This record gives sequence, structure tokens and C-alpha cells, in this order.
Amino acid sequence: MLWSMPQHHDGPLARLRRGHEELVLDLLRRHGPLSRAELGGHSGLSRTTLYDIIAALVDSGAVVASAPAPAERRRGRPVEKLTLRPEAGQAIGIDFARRAVHVAAVNVAHEVIGSASEPHAPGLPWEERVDLAERLVGSLAGGSLRLGALSAIGVGVVGPVEDVAAGPPDAPVEAHPEQPDTAPGPQSPRTDLALLLRKRFGVPVLVDNNTRLAALAEATWGAAAGDQDVLYLRLSHGVGGGLVVGGSLHRGAHGLSGEFGHITVEPDGRRCSCGGRGCLETVASVGAVLDAYGRADDLPALLAALPADPAARRALDAAGSRVGTVLAAVCNAIGPGVIVLGGALAAAGDVLFESVERALTADLMPISRHRVDLRPATLGESGGALGAIALVLHESPLLARYPAPPDPLEDT
Amino acid sequence: MLWSMPQHHDGPLARLRRGHEELVLDLLRRHGPLSRAELGGHSGLSRTTLYDIIAALVDSGAVVASAPAPAERRRGRPVEKLTLRPEAGQAIGIDFARRAVHVAAVNVAHEVIGSASEPHAPGLPWEERVDLAERLVGSLAGGSLRLGALSAIGVGVVGPVEDVAAGPPDAPVEAHPEQPDTAPGPQSPRTDLALLLRKRFGVPVLVDNNTRLAALAEATWGAAAGDQDVLYLRLSHGVGGGLVVGGSLHRGAHGLSGEFGHITVEPDGRRCSCGGRGCLETVASVGAVLDAYGRADDLPALLAALPADPAARRALDAAGSRVGTVLAAVCNAIGPGVIVLGGALAAAGDVLFESVERALTADLMPISRHRVDLRPATLGESGGALGAIALVLHESPLLARYPAPPDPLEDT
Repeated sequence: MLWSMPQHHDGPLARLRRGHEELVLDLLRRHGPLSRAELGGHSGLSRTTLYDIIAALVDSGAVVASAPAPAERRRGRPVEKLTLRPEAGQAIGIDFARRAVHVAAVNVAHEVIGSASEPHAPGLPWEERVDLAERLVGSLAGGSLRLGALSAIGVGVVGPVEDVAAGPPDAPVEAHPEQPDTAPGPQSPRTDLALLLRKRFGVPVLVDNNTRLAALAEATWGAAAGDQDVLYLRLSHGVGGGLVVGGSLHRGAHGLSGEFGHITVEPDGRRCSCGGRGCLETVASVGAVLDAYGRADDLPALLAALPADPAARRALDAAGSRVGTVLAAVCNAIGPGVIVLGGALAAAGDVLFESVERALTADLMPISRHRVDLRPATLGESGGALGAIALVLHESPLLARYPAPPDPLEDT
Repeated sequence: MLWSMPQHHDGPLARLRRGHEELVLDLLRRHGPLSRAELGGHSGLSRTTLYDIIAALVDSGAVVASAPAPAERRRGRPVEKLTLRPEAGQAIGIDFARRAVHVAAVNVAHEVIGSASEPHAPGLPWEERVDLAERLVGSLAGGSLRLGALSAIGVGVVGPVEDVAAGPPDAPVEAHPEQPDTAPGPQSPRTDLALLLRKRFGVPVLVDNNTRLAALAEATWGAAAGDQDVLYLRLSHGVGGGLVVGGSLHRGAHGLSGEFGHITVEPDGRRCSCGGRGCLETVASVGAVLDAYGRADDLPALLAALPADPAARRALDAAGSRVGTVLAAVCNAIGPGVIVLGGALAAAGDVLFESVERALTADLMPISRHRVDLRPATLGESGGALGAIALVLHESPLLARYPAPPDPLEDT
């Protein structure tokens, strides 16, 4: 619970009622703003009970009701939405990227209240990265964050993460061969980091891969907000992504879901950092596109050359075409409703998106062609940190099962 | 409920207790045999309450307890498993394939109690296919099936099915361009069929794509029984498949998940029945392999030629290699723990599996290589019908939410 509940007498019926209240609060914490009808659908409570419980929660100040913003109003009476009281607490996300720490904060009404980033040298020791994170978190919202109200901090890291629920504290985590700098310690990087953070912030820590978390963020607050089946692809110095399936982050059997960058596109192509050959990453990462162009030292220079130099366009075009082909294969396999394309390379805009779309359309099953939306990511570099918050808000194993209603038979 | 419950007095505590009993029965119906510890984990009930409820259900005959078969025993005391009383009811699955009807029955203890098939001419009118299905169902278990005890019949059909929950009765269903014979009527084939069956059997009908259902069946009773993340690929006259994600059948945003057969493998390849070009189906279906070999009229003839004719082996090898490449791409994207390979072509055995495995290993991310098991399907042609039962037993929207515990506040 995020605040103290109004106290009832302790009889079985009062406890059952408290269970219902907790269920309603929990649903608002997971889903953000919900109408009474949506709450009814999610909770399974009868209309009478639900309205009664909501009235009590609004009276107590735990829940606030508000009409939608004018832009969202359709014909007829606007539907009132309920949220947790925004001041009741905040959730924090931290993304430990390769060369920067990003943090973000969201209140329990699911409003983003701040984000901050700071680059650092590659290979900065983990103790210092955590110092940096602590400083950035302190700077958010003028230092007024109520960390005591948090149920957990969400954390994104580079590389595969098998199990978001902590597991035994000494469980080894395999380092990703291509990402030697993921690990704070040689044996159990994720656990070491989680322990370090837990010690520092005093709350449970949930860890997942930061690119997958960016996928969850785009499906929660970003380009695919509200969509249930979302494919997110990030084209950056590395190429990776994530899948949201039925509204939840998909991890796969060994936490290896979303490795779109390591799908083979050229059987005899270049050796990839993953140990394979001809992966999408070898032709569609920022570095690969720069290599293909050959006349720019960095991405801004390449983007600047675009209007004047057809060769720059061709380099992006070739990469986009490979990306579209891979996306089509994955779409035929899993049928997402939305594809979100992000990462540094997405800044190329139309040049890239048009070639991706062309190849995607060519290779999608005809029946699927008008059923997948390609959209640019909207959350930028704070996506990983925001996704870490989404993990806490609606995927936390702490919240994984609604509390079983209190059991009066235990007392009889 | 599958049988009449022992009656309690009607006070709120008795109704709460009845809610707990229904939860336990529901869990056993979905999962099949469970230990007390597993029931505790799934239900969230306290040990005291759970043991008390189980004792009452065993006393009433609704639930039976049995030690595991000797082969399953490990060291120490065998763990007793609980199931619903097998005689309490059966669930029926019907697979309307292109040229045959398959039916299967499973009892509520999750034991397969019978299956039957009958081929028919392509294009047989739907009324007659349903007649055939009714006859086959009647023949199962010597006609002793207790259809009245069914909560629903699961049905598999050819082609994409968007929404397993019936939806409005007049909702149009798009016919798959490659599968003109899926439809009993021109406007809403699935709904027409569902209505026809509902009228005939008098119970709700759940419909899904039969290849996807075969995937669910393999993950429930077949080669991947108990695995949570399963990729199923069927190589037959068509090529298709299904994904089980986190233990549930994955459908995708528009019911178009699992179309592995329409992933492009040869951009300039043959025109495919889906309207695309160079799809996996154009190189790895039974017809494509026969074409590539050129010296056999049907699959049995090709398989018979295998020992003596290297060209037959090469034809299968080439198909297997394409299959492995596509599987690797899908695995890198979604990270399943098990791949199940079925369909007529899987009868080629090692020749096929070895070439699939070789290409799969070559293209999988190195870190994933020893984390995916390739296994032959075990359920054969009854997979679709069995999967339809699995749909009823643990995916039915009728069972989608545990009944909310009865609400004593309604009465006060």
C-alpha cells in the first residue's frame, strides 16, 4: 500500500471490504487512469460494491476523480477517470546505459514528473554509476520525491536479463559476450547491482534489459501507448528491441527475447560482435551505416550530408531495407499491431522510415499489410528509465497477484 | 461448475468458502493434476484454508488424490497429486481440417480418453462436416460421453481466427486468401460454424486456428508438455505454426501470429499462395519438396526413395536448411525454450531434423545455441482437436477470471 488505509474494525466482512479496496488501488496503480466501467471490468466487483468502495476511497483522499482533458472529449458527457492521488507517491526508474545514466520519475497517477541524464566515460565503476544515479534521482522534482512511498525501483541494464524477479541473491548471471561492460562484478553482475541499489535506496530493485524496458515504455507512455501487441526496434550503436505481448513485456524462455539485431541478413556477411555473422546489427547499426557511407565521422555529419549527397541517402536506404525485411519476418511470426522504431538512427526520419516501410510492405503477408502501423519512438533516451518504472507499476512480481481476499475462516 | 456443489448455508462466510472451493476446482480444471503445494502457489490461499477445502472436496468425491506413477517417483515420499474426479466430465475438441474431421475427448483430470478421424472430399458442405463431427464424437468412449457436463466445445479451423471469444454473432470474418474453403458461409464463416455447432451440441463453442491449436496441444500433452515458451512449426501441404508464450496461446494483434510459412526466404522466389513471393512455404511444403526432387508423386514415395537416392536426401536437406534459418530468426526475436516440428514432412526424421538443426545452430545468436531444444511433434493429426480441448480447459474466456468471491456486502 502506498499510504495508510482508513481503518475498519477487524471483523471478516471489514477485512473482505479492505481486500476490495486494495484491489481497486492496485488496479489504478498498474493501469493509471481508469473509468468506473474499466475498473468494473478489471476487478469483477459488482457495480454496487465498486461504487461504494470508490466513494470511500475518494472521500479518504486516496483516489481522485477527474474529467478527461477537453481534447479527449467526444460527443456526450465526458467520462470521469479515477487515479491514485498524484501526491501519494512516486516511482523511480534508472537506466544504466553504456555511457550514461538516465533517471525518470512518474507519480502514482502515471504522470511523468521528471527525467534527467548524465553521460559518463565507458567502463565507469559501478559504485560511481550508482553515485551518479543517486545524485540524478535527488535532482528530480526539486528533491521533493517521496522515496519512502516507493514499492520498488526499476532498473535497466545493458545485456540479457533472464529473470526480473530477483531469484537467489547469489545466482550467477551470464555476461553477454558482446557486452563485457555490463557487469559490476565478475560473478553476478545483476545481483551485485541490485544489492548495491537496494542498500543505497532501501527498497526492492527490479532489473531488466534496458532496450526491452524502452519497448514497455513506448507501449505505456510513448508511440504505442495503450497498444497491446507492440514490436520495438532500436537502431543505435547496437541494434536490439523488445516485444510487448498482450500488454506485458515478453522475455522468452531465457530472457533472450527481442534480439532482432542478431537475426541473420547476410549469411556470408561481416562477423558480428555476438559471435555470429551477417546479423542485422552488422548492416543497420550507426557504425555500419557510417562505414557504408564512408564520408562522415559521426551520425550528425551523415545526417547533415543527407540533403546534398545521394550517397548518404543510399547508405540509409540500404540499412532501412534490411530492417524492413527483418521486421516483416518477425511480424509474420508474431503479428504485432504496432512497430515502434527508435534509437539514434531514427533521427534520419523519412529517408529511413520510407525504406523500412517499403521493404516491410513487400515482405509482409498480404493479409497483414494494412494491419501493422510503423511509428517513430517518442520517448528518446529516457525510454529505458521510463520502462523501468512501468515494470514497477504494472509488472512488479510484488504486485503479480492481487492479494487474496482476507480469509475469515482462519479466525473461526 | 462441472457438478453440483455440496450445499452450505447461505451466509457470507459460507459463500466466501464456496468461492474458495470454486477457485480450487477451477485451478484443477485448467492445470490438470496439481500437488497441494502447487495449488497453494496458484490460489494464494493459506495452508490451513486450502487443506480444509481440499479435504471437503475429496470427501464429496469432486476431487481425487493419487500418488504419481512409479516411473515418476524420485527419492523420498512421492508427492500426492490432486485431480478432478475423472468421471465428472469430458471436454471435446473438433478439428475441421481441409480434408478430414478429427475429434478428441479428454476428461476433467486431463487424461486423453479417445480420438477419431475421418477423411472427406475437399469442399464438403459445412452441414455435412458437422454431421461427420457429431458422428465421430458419438463414437468416442463407446458413446458414454457426458456432453451435458461440458462447459464448451473447442473447435479448430483452417485459416486465421482473430478473436477466440465469440464477439457479436454477425461479426464478419475475413477469409484467408489462400484458404477459400474455410468458410461455411460467405459472410461470417466462423460465426456460422459456431452457431451451427452450438445448435447441434447445445454448449458454447470456442474457435481458433487449428495449427495454432496444435501448438497449444504440443505444449499441453505433447512434445513440449509443461514448457512455457514453445514454437511449433508444421511442415505439411501448407507451412504454418503457433506460439505458446508464458504458457498461453499467442494470437497477435489481428489473430495473425504463427505465420512462419509466409516469412520470405527467397526475395525473387516463387509466387506463394498468400500472394507474396519466395515464402518458406514455397520451398519447404510437401509439394515444394516433391517438386525439388522431381522423381516421386507423393511423400511416401519420396521417403521410400531416401535410402537409395541421394537426390531425395538433397531435396529434404535444402528444405530443412531453409526451415532452420527461419526458425533461428524467430528464435532470436522471441526466445522460445522448445521448438516442436510436426506435419507430414517431419516423417522424414533425421534427414530433415539434422539439416534443420544445422541451419538453426548456425544462425542462432551464439548465447542462445544450447538453450533451444528441437523436438519432433508427438500428437500427430489429433493435435488440432486436442489443442481445441486445451483451449476449453485452460484458455476459455468463460474461465478467464476466477470468480470474484461472493460479496457479502451486497446483502448488508
